[in-house]
Formats: sequence, C-alpha cells, structure tokens
Amino acid sequence: MMKGKGFSFPSLFSFLKENKCKYDRRKIIHSIKVGFSLVLVSLLYLLDPLFKQVGENAMWAIMTVVVVFEFFAGATLSKGINRGIGTVIGGGLGCLAAILADEIGGIGNAIVVGSSVFIFGAAATYARLVPKIKRRYDYGALIFILTFNLVVVSGVRAEKVMDLAWERLSTIGMGFGVCIFISLLIFPMWASDELHYSTASKFDKLAYSIEGCLEEYFKMTSEKENKTSANVEPCKSVLHSKSNDESLANFAKWEPWHGKFGLAYPWEKYIEIGEILREMAATIIALKGCAQSPKQPSPMQRQEMYKPCEILGLSLVWVLRELGESIEKMNKCRAKILITPKLQFIKLQLNLMQPSSKIQVENDNNLATSSFIFLLMEFVE
Amino acid sequence: MMKGKGFSFPSLFSFLKENKCKYDRRKIIHSIKVGFSLVLVSLLYLLDPLFKQVGENAMWAIMTVVVVFEFFAGATLSKGINRGIGTVIGGGLGCLAAILADEIGGIGNAIVVGSSVFIFGAAATYARLVPKIKRRYDYGALIFILTFNLVVVSGVRAEKVMDLAWERLSTIGMGFGVCIFISLLIFPMWASDELHYSTASKFDKLAYSIEGCLEEYFKMTSEKENKTSANVEPCKSVLHSKSNDESLANFAKWEPWHGKFGLAYPWEKYIEIGEILREMAATIIALKGCAQSPKQPSPMQRQEMYKPCEILGLSLVWVLRELGESIEKMNKCRAKILITPKLQFIKLQLNLMQPSSKIQVENDNNLATSSFIFLLMEFVE
Repeated sequence: MMKGKGFSFPSLFSFLKENKCKYDRRKIIHSIKVGFSLVLVSLLYLLDPLFKQVGENAMWAIMTVVVVFEFFAGATLSKGINRGIGTVIGGGLGCLAAILADEIGGIGNAIVVGSSVFIFGAAATYARLVPKIKRRYDYGALIFILTFNLVVVSGVRAEKVMDLAWERLSTIGMGFGVCIFISLLIFPMWASDELHYSTASKFDKLAYSIEGCLEEYFKMTSEKENKTSANVEPCKSVLHSKSNDESLANFAKWEPWHGKFGLAYPWEKYIEIGEILREMAATIIALKGCAQSPKQPSPMQRQEMYKPCEILGLSLVWVLRELGESIEKMNKCRAKILITPKLQFIKLQLNLMQPSSKIQVENDNNLATSSFIFLLMEFVE
Repeated sequence: MMKGKGFSFPSLFSFLKENKCKYDRRKIIHSIKVGFSLVLVSLLYLLDPLFKQVGENAMWAIMTVVVVFEFFAGATLSKGINRGIGTVIGGGLGCLAAILADEIGGIGNAIVVGSSVFIFGAAATYARLVPKIKRRYDYGALIFILTFNLVVVSGVRAEKVMDLAWERLSTIGMGFGVCIFISLLIFPMWASDELHYSTASKFDKLAYSIEGCLEEYFKMTSEKENKTSANVEPCKSVLHSKSNDESLANFAKWEPWHGKFGLAYPWEKYIEIGEILREMAATIIALKGCAQSPKQPSPMQRQEMYKPCEILGLSLVWVLRELGESIEKMNKCRAKILITPKLQFIKLQLNLMQPSSKIQVENDNNLATSSFIFLLMEFVE
C-alpha cells in the first residue's frame, strides 16, 4: 500500500508538467496552423489569376478563416457548418425579401425591407437566447442575421443579388475548405481525445485529493503550519469542469470517425461520469472541511481510527486509479475482475467498523459514490 | 421557526416563476432592441443621402451591430471597445506592412505580405489562447487578425489604403454608436444587476436545500418513495455557477456607473462570495449523500437527534436568508446586529452536543463555512 502512496506525488507532478508542456506545444502548433491557413487564403489576393476569378470577394474567404478556425477540429467543423447553413438560409430568405420588395417598388420597397429586417432580426436574436439553440446553433443564427441583412439591404442597390450571393458563398466555401483541410489533416486536435483523457485524469485527481486529505488529517498535530490546502485544487478543477466538458462533448459530436472512437460514440456517458465525479469531488471538499474544522477528536481516538481509515482510503484511491486507467485504455475486463472484489472488501471493512468517527462516515459516503460510478462503468464499456 | 418552513416552498416557486417570466420578458425586450438597431443601421443603405456619404462601407456598420450587440450592456461595451481597438491596431499595423511591402516592390512585395500575415496571424492566435488575454481581449485579438489581413492584402490592390481604413473605421463607429445608444439607454440590461441578484439568490437556494435535506432526513421512513432528490437542484446550480459568475463580473467591470453601484465597485468580492457559497453547496451535497446513504441510525437515535438538528438547521437557514437579503438590499447594520448573536448561539448549541451523529458533524462544517462567509461579509459592506 505504501508503495502506491510514495509513488503518487512525483507521478502526479510529472503527469501535470507533461500535460502542460503538451498543451503548450499544441497551442503553438495551432497558431502555426492558423498562420499557414491565412497565408494560403491570402493567395487569392496575391496571385493574379486567382484574383481575377474571385475579385474583392476574396475578403470573405479571409474572414471565414479568421472566424471559423478554432482550436479543436470539432469546433472548427461546427462553426464552419453553422456558417454555411446560416449563409445559405439567410441569403435565400434575403433574396426572396429583396425580390418581393423590388416587386412592390417605390416607398413600399423601403418599408418591406425595413420591416423584414426588424422581424427576422428580432426573431433570430430571440432564438439565439433559447438555451438549446444557443448551445449548438448560436453562430449559425448570428450569420443568418448578418447575411439576411446584407443581402436584403444591398438588394435595394445591387441588381444582381443572386450573383453576389453566389460569389460570396463560393469564397466562403473556399475559406472553409482551407480550414477543414488544415484543421483535420495536419496535426488534428480532437475535442474527443481531450474529453476522453480529461475524464480519465479526473479519476487521478480525485484519488490524489483523497490521499492528500488522509495525510493532512493524520499528520495535523506535528506539521499543521507548513501544510496548505493546496491538495484540493485538483478536486476543485474537477468540480468546475461542467461547462468545459459540455462544450467538449458538443464539439466531439461533430467530429468524424477517427482513432478508437466510432461514429456514434456515446459522448453523453462522459457527461454522466463527469456529473458523478463532480458529486464525489463535492464530498471530498466536505471531507477536507472536516479535516480542517476546529473540532477534532482526541489524539487517542485519532490513533484508533488511523489504521482502518488508511486501509479504506488507499483502497478507494486504488479503485479510482484503476477505473481511470481502464477508461483511458478502454479495456473493461481487468477493471471488472479486479475492482468488484476490492469494492466488496471495502464494504465488508465498513460493516465491521462502528460508525463512530466522522472520517469513516465520509468514507462510507465516498464508497457509495464510487460503487455508483462502478455501476455506470459497466454501462459504458 | 415553523412559519419559516411552511412559507418557503410556495415562496420559492413563485420566486422562480417570477424570475423566469422576468427573464423571458428581458429576452423579448433584447430581441426587439436588436431588431430596432438593425433597422436604424440599415437606414444607411435605405436613405439616399446617407448612402451617398458612406457607400458600400455601410456593410461594416451592419456587421458591427449584428456581432457586437449582446444581451448585457457590459458585454456590448466590452465587445465594441475590443472591436474598435482591434480594428485600429490591426489597421495601423496593416498599413505599415502594406507600405513597407510597396517600398520593396516586385516579388519581394508578395513575400513581405505573406510572411507578415503568417507572423502576425500566428502570434495573435497564440495570444488568444493565453487564459488572461482570452478572458478580456479574445474578440479584440480576433478582429486584429481580421483587419490586419484585410488591410495588408488589399494594400497590394487598392492604392488608397488609408482612405479605405478610415471609411471602414467610421462606419464601424456608427454601428457601435447605435449599439451603445440602444443598449445603454433603452431598457438597459446590466450584468452588474444580474450578478448582484444572482449572488443574493444563491443564499436563498442554499437555505432551501438545507431545509429540504433536513426534511428528507427525518421523514425518510414514512415517505421515502415519493420524495425525489429534486431539492438539491438549486444547490447544484450554485455549484456550477463559476463560469457564469466570472463572465458576469467581467462584463460588470465594463459597465459605467449606474444605479447603486459606484465606478470602482468591488466585483471581485462577488466572485469570492460565490467561491465560498460553492464550497458550502458542496458540503450540502455531501450532506444529502449522508441522508440518502443506506447506513442510517436507528429510529430511536434519529428521534434523539431530531430536536437539536432542527434548531441548528433552521438557524442556519435563517442566517443564510438574512445574509442574502442584506446583500440584496445592501444594508449591513441589521445583518450584523442580528446575525452575530445568532451565530454565537449556534456555536454554543454545537458545543453542548456531543459529536455523535453524522448530521451534526455536517452542520458543524456548514457552520464553519457560514461563519467564514460572515467574516467576508464584513469586508464587503
């Protein structure tokens, strides 16, 4: 058991450091990719034969690259498709409204244009505030408003609305093509990978926090001062991961088949696991509160509790690490075979002890959560 | 005490309902405001004298309104200012690069343009990934890349780069002016108000959850089935409010003096209070875990615990409601005078009881948190 404990600190640090470096390297790669796509798309301006083809509309290709190219491949795809759909629908409706306004003519023209701008603008803005639409189609609605307005008001001036719309759409398509090509084919960064590994690392973080709590609780008297509560930071990061997880899952759904993930991979399961882990993180934070509370048992009581608590805690830590690893490597058998008896052993231990100390109660609670996690794990894999 | 309990359910429901309606009404108002601004800015196209002035650049005014107009006044201001700064810096640097490229001429021209596009694009994209810049200047950096690129590549074609930049900037200014005028002067929606009231309502939500937990714990035997764990939902919403709070505080900083908030209002304090409330919410969720755990004390023990727990819990609920109200109304005296003796009374009660039951332990923990909140409250007001 002690081997697991002595091993954890350096391993976590190196893990975090490696992770940070990796993330930084990914940032640099992403920046280079964006710069490269911008140069590619600028060629539309710089090379004479290309410029003669597209003309001033090359602007829209640049704009598309700047706005659509996101860090994760899924985000780029989602934004690009949203932009495409928004442009098509907005352009189509805009053309219809412009033609209608043209038919009426005179002062009625301006009235039709103004009122259609108001109605469609207000309706699409309201749609953007509806949570469900906001989550997946926010950007599409924005582009819809923009395109609709530009088309309908230029319709009053420019005769060839259809041509304009077509040219613009084709340059947007070029920009999008460049984005997709560079984002998906050159060092792609998958939101799905990120979600997968961050979920697996959450187990590690929780295990590390439990270890920290146990240590703090039983070493309090001697070295109370120099131990800060830094060890719950990973726990808090788990607690606050909800919005991040949700956006990653959202992007992951857009990503095509790659690596070990199939097309209809159950990303919702990751959200569910995250939810349970967050609940467990909440329990660990409460446990830390107990450890730091001014009310403490006598040293004798503490001594008495020490052994069973350590066994329990380390078993929990082990189970968590095992689960995290099995998620990361996507193999269920080993986890199932090893963890079930371990969990039953923990339960047995708990039943043997009288619920007299607070830390045991908390551990009991942790156990309930972790067995719940275990049940869920069987669903996933 | 029982009055407070019977009062809470309908009051919370009506509170939520009212809040929801209010929010919906605000959404509708926002949509109408956006529609109205779009019509205003479309007049640049529709009215002949105006169109003669600005020409095709009127497009940029429409684009600005569509992209910049956000739900909260602070968000609109922040985006608009970001857009302005990004455009100016990007345009300035773009002009310099275009002039430099022009000086060199020939094939060197294209090389200078291409490499400057690459270098500035990659650098600004990297900056966008740095958390500190991302939080406040993400949009500005995006617009910087966009403007720089457009200016530097059109510089190759258009001779009058400066004129173009100036015209574009002035139309963007017009669009921004319309946004600010409508967003700030007609039914403004302040992120600062939202943050203020949502912080105050968090106290209420936590109080409601504690009540629910106590009720569930002591009524378990008789009506275990039909009581779901719905009462921790408000608690969870508090737990997951971090990112929302942070963006609101970020917008609130941009907002000018209005209502009861001064210019240098300490918005960070709200974040700190939120942090403590989230920790408390975590404790409450752990408490709920205890109440739902399969290990329960015997009915006799439970009976014994009932009275002190109820007194404690309801005192806590009362203290929380009082704190929430005092934050909402921004008066410190009443809270200070009333709450200090109440907290001391709770502490006394806790000292009288032996720490034998889990719920007491949890309450102790809650108390520690709430007295911490109290200490912080003294700072704020």
